[in-house]
Amino acid sequence: MAEPLGRRDLFRLPLQRAAAVLEPVVPRPRPEPGSEPGALASHADARRPTITVIAYGPHELTEAPVDDLELLRTMRGRWPVLWVNVDGVAHGETLRAVGEVFGLHPLALEDLGDVQQRAKVEEYPDHLFVVARMARLAPDLDLEQIGIFLGRDYVLTFQERPGDPLDTLRQRIRASRGRLRTGGPDYLAYAVLDAIVDHYFPVAEAYADRLDALEDEVLGRPSRGTMPRLHAVKRDLMALRRAAWPLRDALAALVREPGPLVSPGTVVYFRDTQDHAFQILDLLETYRELAGSLTDLYLGNQGRRANEIMKVLTVFAALFIPLGFITGVYGMNVPVPPGWWWTLSAALGAMAATALLLLLWFARKRWLGDDG
Amino acid sequence: MAEPLGRRDLFRLPLQRAAAVLEPVVPRPRPEPGSEPGALASHADARRPTITVIAYGPHELTEAPVDDLELLRTMRGRWPVLWVNVDGVAHGETLRAVGEVFGLHPLALEDLGDVQQRAKVEEYPDHLFVVARMARLAPDLDLEQIGIFLGRDYVLTFQERPGDPLDTLRQRIRASRGRLRTGGPDYLAYAVLDAIVDHYFPVAEAYADRLDALEDEVLGRPSRGTMPRLHAVKRDLMALRRAAWPLRDALAALVREPGPLVSPGTVVYFRDTQDHAFQILDLLETYRELAGSLTDLYLGNQGRRANEIMKVLTVFAALFIPLGFITGVYGMNVPVPPGWWWTLSAALGAMAATALLLLLWFARKRWLGDDG
Amino acid sequence: MAEPLGRRDLFRLPLQRAAAVLEPVVPRPRPEPGSEPGALASHADARRPTITVIAYGPHELTEAPVDDLELLRTMRGRWPVLWVNVDGVAHGETLRAVGEVFGLHPLALEDLGDVQQRAKVEEYPDHLFVVARMARLAPDLDLEQIGIFLGRDYVLTFQERPGDPLDTLRQRIRASRGRLRTGGPDYLAYAVLDAIVDHYFPVAEAYADRLDALEDEVLGRPSRGTMPRLHAVKRDLMALRRAAWPLRDALAALVREPGPLVSPGTVVYFRDTQDHAFQILDLLETYRELAGSLTDLYLGNQGRRANEIMKVLTVFAALFIPLGFITGVYGMNVPVPPGWWWTLSAALGAMAATALLLLLWFARKRWLGDDG
Amino acid sequence: MAEPLGRRDLFRLPLQRAAAVLEPVVPRPRPEPGSEPGALASHADARRPTITVIAYGPHELTEAPVDDLELLRTMRGRWPVLWVNVDGVAHGETLRAVGEVFGLHPLALEDLGDVQQRAKVEEYPDHLFVVARMARLAPDLDLEQIGIFLGRDYVLTFQERPGDPLDTLRQRIRASRGRLRTGGPDYLAYAVLDAIVDHYFPVAEAYADRLDALEDEVLGRPSRGTMPRLHAVKRDLMALRRAAWPLRDALAALVREPGPLVSPGTVVYFRDTQDHAFQILDLLETYRELAGSLTDLYLGNQGRRANEIMKVLTVFAALFIPLGFITGVYGMNVPVPPGWWWTLSAALGAMAATALLLLLWFARKRWLGDDG
Amino acid sequence: MAEPLGRRDLFRLPLQRAAAVLEPVVPRPRPEPGSEPGALASHADARRPTITVIAYGPHELTEAPVDDLELLRTMRGRWPVLWVNVDGVAHGETLRAVGEVFGLHPLALEDLGDVQQRAKVEEYPDHLFVVARMARLAPDLDLEQIGIFLGRDYVLTFQERPGDPLDTLRQRIRASRGRLRTGGPDYLAYAVLDAIVDHYFPVAEAYADRLDALEDEVLGRPSRGTMPRLHAVKRDLMALRRAAWPLRDALAALVREPGPLVSPGTVVYFRDTQDHAFQILDLLETYRELAGSLTDLYLGNQGRRANEIMKVLTVFAALFIPLGFITGVYGMNVPVPPGWWWTLSAALGAMAATALLLLLWFARKRWLGDDG
Repeated sequence: MAEPLGRRDLFRLPLQRAAAVLEPVVPRPRPEPGSEPGALASHADARRPTITVIAYGPHELTEAPVDDLELLRTMRGRWPVLWVNVDGVAHGETLRAVGEVFGLHPLALEDLGDVQQRAKVEEYPDHLFVVARMARLAPDLDLEQIGIFLGRDYVLTFQERPGDPLDTLRQRIRASRGRLRTGGPDYLAYAVLDAIVDHYFPVAEAYADRLDALEDEVLGRPSRGTMPRLHAVKRDLMALRRAAWPLRDALAALVREPGPLVSPGTVVYFRDTQDHAFQILDLLETYRELAGSLTDLYLGNQGRRANEIMKVLTVFAALFIPLGFITGVYGMNVPVPPGWWWTLSAALGAMAATALLLLLWFARKRWLGDDG
Repeated sequence: MAEPLGRRDLFRLPLQRAAAVLEPVVPRPRPEPGSEPGALASHADARRPTITVIAYGPHELTEAPVDDLELLRTMRGRWPVLWVNVDGVAHGETLRAVGEVFGLHPLALEDLGDVQQRAKVEEYPDHLFVVARMARLAPDLDLEQIGIFLGRDYVLTFQERPGDPLDTLRQRIRASRGRLRTGGPDYLAYAVLDAIVDHYFPVAEAYADRLDALEDEVLGRPSRGTMPRLHAVKRDLMALRRAAWPLRDALAALVREPGPLVSPGTVVYFRDTQDHAFQILDLLETYRELAGSLTDLYLGNQGRRANEIMKVLTVFAALFIPLGFITGVYGMNVPVPPGWWWTLSAALGAMAATALLLLLWFARKRWLGDDG
Repeated sequence: MAEPLGRRDLFRLPLQRAAAVLEPVVPRPRPEPGSEPGALASHADARRPTITVIAYGPHELTEAPVDDLELLRTMRGRWPVLWVNVDGVAHGETLRAVGEVFGLHPLALEDLGDVQQRAKVEEYPDHLFVVARMARLAPDLDLEQIGIFLGRDYVLTFQERPGDPLDTLRQRIRASRGRLRTGGPDYLAYAVLDAIVDHYFPVAEAYADRLDALEDEVLGRPSRGTMPRLHAVKRDLMALRRAAWPLRDALAALVREPGPLVSPGTVVYFRDTQDHAFQILDLLETYRELAGSLTDLYLGNQGRRANEIMKVLTVFAALFIPLGFITGVYGMNVPVPPGWWWTLSAALGAMAATALLLLLWFARKRWLGDDG
Repeated sequence: MAEPLGRRDLFRLPLQRAAAVLEPVVPRPRPEPGSEPGALASHADARRPTITVIAYGPHELTEAPVDDLELLRTMRGRWPVLWVNVDGVAHGETLRAVGEVFGLHPLALEDLGDVQQRAKVEEYPDHLFVVARMARLAPDLDLEQIGIFLGRDYVLTFQERPGDPLDTLRQRIRASRGRLRTGGPDYLAYAVLDAIVDHYFPVAEAYADRLDALEDEVLGRPSRGTMPRLHAVKRDLMALRRAAWPLRDALAALVREPGPLVSPGTVVYFRDTQDHAFQILDLLETYRELAGSLTDLYLGNQGRRANEIMKVLTVFAALFIPLGFITGVYGMNVPVPPGWWWTLSAALGAMAATALLLLLWFARKRWLGDDG
Repeated sequence: MAEPLGRRDLFRLPLQRAAAVLEPVVPRPRPEPGSEPGALASHADARRPTITVIAYGPHELTEAPVDDLELLRTMRGRWPVLWVNVDGVAHGETLRAVGEVFGLHPLALEDLGDVQQRAKVEEYPDHLFVVARMARLAPDLDLEQIGIFLGRDYVLTFQERPGDPLDTLRQRIRASRGRLRTGGPDYLAYAVLDAIVDHYFPVAEAYADRLDALEDEVLGRPSRGTMPRLHAVKRDLMALRRAAWPLRDALAALVREPGPLVSPGTVVYFRDTQDHAFQILDLLETYRELAGSLTDLYLGNQGRRANEIMKVLTVFAALFIPLGFITGVYGMNVPVPPGWWWTLSAALGAMAATALLLLLWFARKRWLGDDG
């Protein structure tokens, strides 16, 4: 599991790195509009994905890499639960072959290959198809798409990229802990979804830390990078919300109408996962508002600083420009007056008086202090 | 019960204290994603929670600290109402033991240990499980999570932290006042929830006072701390709303489908509590809008002040710079002209005329007054 | 009925008075959280409320002040409609006594005493309980809470404060006009609610006038008080909306499920009142948006004025500072040059050329006009 | 039909005229709160409205002004469709008389007299009552209220003001074009509503033109009037939306539950009108957002201009003030130094160097160009 | 299919071109309000549209241009699927003739002619009528309206303008690929809608690229064109959302109640298209928020720059104006003092001290660096 970055790490990143976070918002190439649905274009440079299988029941467990898909065909029906994990979805041929083994619907297979899906739950006659998005900071925000098929005796998971965010789960199965081994495939599907949803929490926490740091920055010494950093956080929060929102709706739909593949006892667990998704969205919503309030704070502070600067300028200019004018008048090109001592004194006195009056006026306006 | 702070107290706090309020928005550590649901990790430094029990019926009442959980097992079923209060939820072992005594669902027990729950009502076959959040100012905003189990003959309350916000209620039971002693556990559960909801009112009032003070500040003499204080209020209002919103929904769900554990006569009371939750949210929403309007007011005032400052600068500069130029021209390094008296008079006259014209122009533009 | 203030009166008020309008947003003291529901704390300085009764049927009518509540007990059941009006809700003892005469539910009685209720309609077995808020300008915004009980043969109205906003209605009963005398208590309850809703219209009109005046101000000569006044209007509109919104919902619920106490013929009338509540909310919503647009307009105008001021400053400074520099150069402390007449002319020429070029540049930038 | 104004005409109007558009937002005087429902107060200066009737069937048609209401009573029941149009709703007596002829409900009649109704559809036992608002630019925005009664054999239309926006329709009936003559009164009612809804399109187009012109203005040369004009457009869009929103809802309700007076074949037509109302609201919503984006654009441009102006000021001031200082030093009142030629050259060199360095610095900051 | 423009191309366009994108927001001329529904006004300069037909079954296929509509009448009923495509909807006569051949409802035909329809699905007894909007960048945003009729054995498509965005689809039919040839007309209708929805993706991507470029611009060197470009993107996103929003709703309605013309097996496909529409709206919504955040960022940066500029101005002015004053005082027109060397030194020392103190003060305020 990706270790969430601490706040200090995140901000050590140069800003260019941070800018790369926009990427997940931009959809990747997809099939040409008007082309066949279910057309699984193999990306030219797609390598064959790694497939692994864990088959288990309450008392036995076997685990193997799958090089030949025939193996899956052999194992089907012989184990209470068959969990096949496919790493990488760019190789259309493999997807089609796996789909054939388990009788998956072509539309669902097409959705696997399109890594810009919204989270959703779709019921097909023989299986339930779930698409969700796993959040990670690696160190930028990464929203990997995961497709899950739940059948009568199998769970298939298709990850967008290699790497194993579901490893903790696999270890729990091996260690034969708790209900996981005795529960059916529906319980395994729940466990996968629960792991996905719970991955959002450390990510959300990391953003809370960033906002915390930004708040200190705005209240303390805002710099040239403050607003861009705030903007980057907002953008990531948007991406997270866009990933989590449909996930929550999909889970709610699943809880409301679980269908025949999910046993009533497992629905309670799905409801719990749905609660977590609600919590995530609450957090993200709050962070979004917080970021908005920080923007206001920044703009308000900037206005206050502008006024401060202008007050200094105005006090200096308004004080010395009139005095300079008096010296200018006295410096005009005329013969030195005979009683110059007296007129000089008068001029200096006028300057002192002018300065004093202006200072008093500014003091009354409270432009001399540092506040406001 | 925590005495809500008066407005004067709240603002005597240094700003750093106020900044600590963000904390409750940030989720605390939770179990690693992918781990077992119902896994009640005991925090390393978790002390054993204090457990107390009050058992009562219309005519009798007994009250005791619980050192050995066997006591609870003995008392169950012998009293019309058994109220067990647990102070602290970090000690997983104790939670599990209590859960066993009352047959609580493992998922509900897990939720107890996670202090970042949304408020909710969940029906399990044998009990109703309610999570809510109690608001206090101590002196910063504190949103303590409280878990409530309502069974056929018991009410269990689990508080996040020691300290007793439900003490008034306990005293009412002891004093045998009103329906509390004759009502069943459902009425006690209502009384607990009602106390929780009503705790929001003094907190909301305190924020109304703060907004009131901030409004005076913005209209009067805004200082360097005005916007940060306004931001702090906004942030707390977000946290409060995030706590109160799901509570309202949970209560509405409870009133709509009370289930077999809540008698029809008690539903009316729950409806009343739900009304209070609605009121709270109305208040918080209004305060939020008020804070928004104050931000606008602050920014508008700042713009006005900027214009005022710039007008002073412009009037001084535009008045004296041309005059200074004339003295400069007359001060140029040429022989003193023969009829210097006349040219000097002409120069002075030109200056007076320039000054007068400029002043008239500024007056027509109304830049000389203090307004606008 | 309180005469709504004309626009001129409203703005003659000093700003401090206007600030007092925030008050109704702030909740008044309420019972301590955790205390008994239905506990009707008599305020220490609560005077005994004035109670009056009007009993009528199609052909007869009697009217009397009620000093002894026994009178009500005697009158019940003898008249087709009994309308009891109670002025003041702070005296708990009286409320309890009236509640006993008519068999009112303790929770409803408690709500009477809490003057920060949301508008609502609640059905109890024997009576319908309605809470609403009457809007007045007196001259500040005043939102008085009115509680209404509709029973089989009575209507009880509880006003928060003495004074009689329902006097027009009483006169209509006395004058035996229209359906009011022949209709049952449900029609009287409708008439009371209709009067309450219709009181919002003159208040909304007054705010439309204020916004109108503020628009003139913003477009014309905004002053130091413009933004505060706009803020005050926004704040009052929030309070009004907070009062009217739940009233509309309550009326909608009443129209949807009128219950056995409201005859089908009267429901049509309630629907009409509900339409009026919708209109009120439409108006308030529009005014709120209008106030928002005025804020934008104000900020935009301020920015424009700032640019105007800065253009004047820049033109003056950029024009005369270079010229002043040239005079400065010519004023340097060197012997008067022999052919000073020619160099002086050159210097003056250079100044004229500089000035001309700058003026042309500013003209091309269109900084010399008054616009933009 | 009022010719919608071209864009050029609209902006030739003085701003004061434009300000008058706020009027329709402000409610007109209404009956005193608490007065009798259905009380049709005749306005003191209300003239008797003009009433005209068209009676037609597939093959015959008669048309007449109605001076005596007995005529209507005679005609009722003798023609398949009777369309009575009343111009002006201020004369309560006439409304009451017409209401008596057709047995209209007093509440509906009262609504006719109140020209600040929301659009709505109300079913009464014998007739359907529709209130809608017709939009026109004449040349300011005018939202005339039209009340429509649909009975078994009649359609009554009540216009707020004389003038005939339904004239095209009348001509279509006379010309015996299409389904209008063979359809029943429900089809006529549809035709009236459709004409009302379609009148919004040219009005919306006119505002699109205005926004277009304002966009050019903001992007090109914003003037003192730009923001006020933008505000005026926003205000009118609010008024339009407030008129069209409930109309859409009313039509949706009518399509959902047409009642016995609307034949199934005509419902398809009402659905089409409902679609148009949806389109109108889509347009208005888009224009509202566009106006908001234009406000942002204006504020952003203003900030950019401010920075531009300040850069000019700063470059001039920062360049010449130091130079002026050097001349000042050299102009101090000391004996002309012996080797003044060398020191003068040094001073001039220092000035040149200073100027050059500053210019380089400003060039590096890119403050010398026109951009940014 | 229109090749979506690369980011570089889009921004090479002059701004005037970009401004033309507003057009689709403005409705085109429509029939006069009050005129006959179903009245298909032929535009004066409307050329006869091109009509083509493809008729196919699993094994055979024929394709022809249609010059005489009799051809269609002959072909009806002889082929499993008849797809007629009409290019151009301005020629009312042709629409009416086609409508007659297939028995289309006059209201649907009228909608074809009005190119400002909202997307919708309408069920008529014999056919389903769908209106949708196809998005293209050509190079400005172009939202072409497409009307689709689905009958028992035919699909009719009416394009607003010539040009063939559905060509890929036609090629798929010819190439006899996949289910397209064996599926009925409902599957063809799905394929058309799917092509329309999928056309939104490359368009949305192009706007993501633009936003990306604008983000770089705002973070780097915002220019005079940044805000107008941002505004143009916002405006196009509004137009896209306005087109896609009702399309999504229409598809949802179709999936919920497919009616008899859509076979259950095809509904799954429509559900997939609906998912894509949801994705599109998610993307557009995210881009809209991103554009809003960019506006904030721009305004915040502008404020920061303003403060930077003002700091430079203030430092220069506040430093040299006092020094200039001292030289002015020393330059006053008095006899050269006897010990002028000492007083000159004193004056120069005072200047140095003043400058130093001011610099220290500015350093303490951190106005000398480049930040903040």
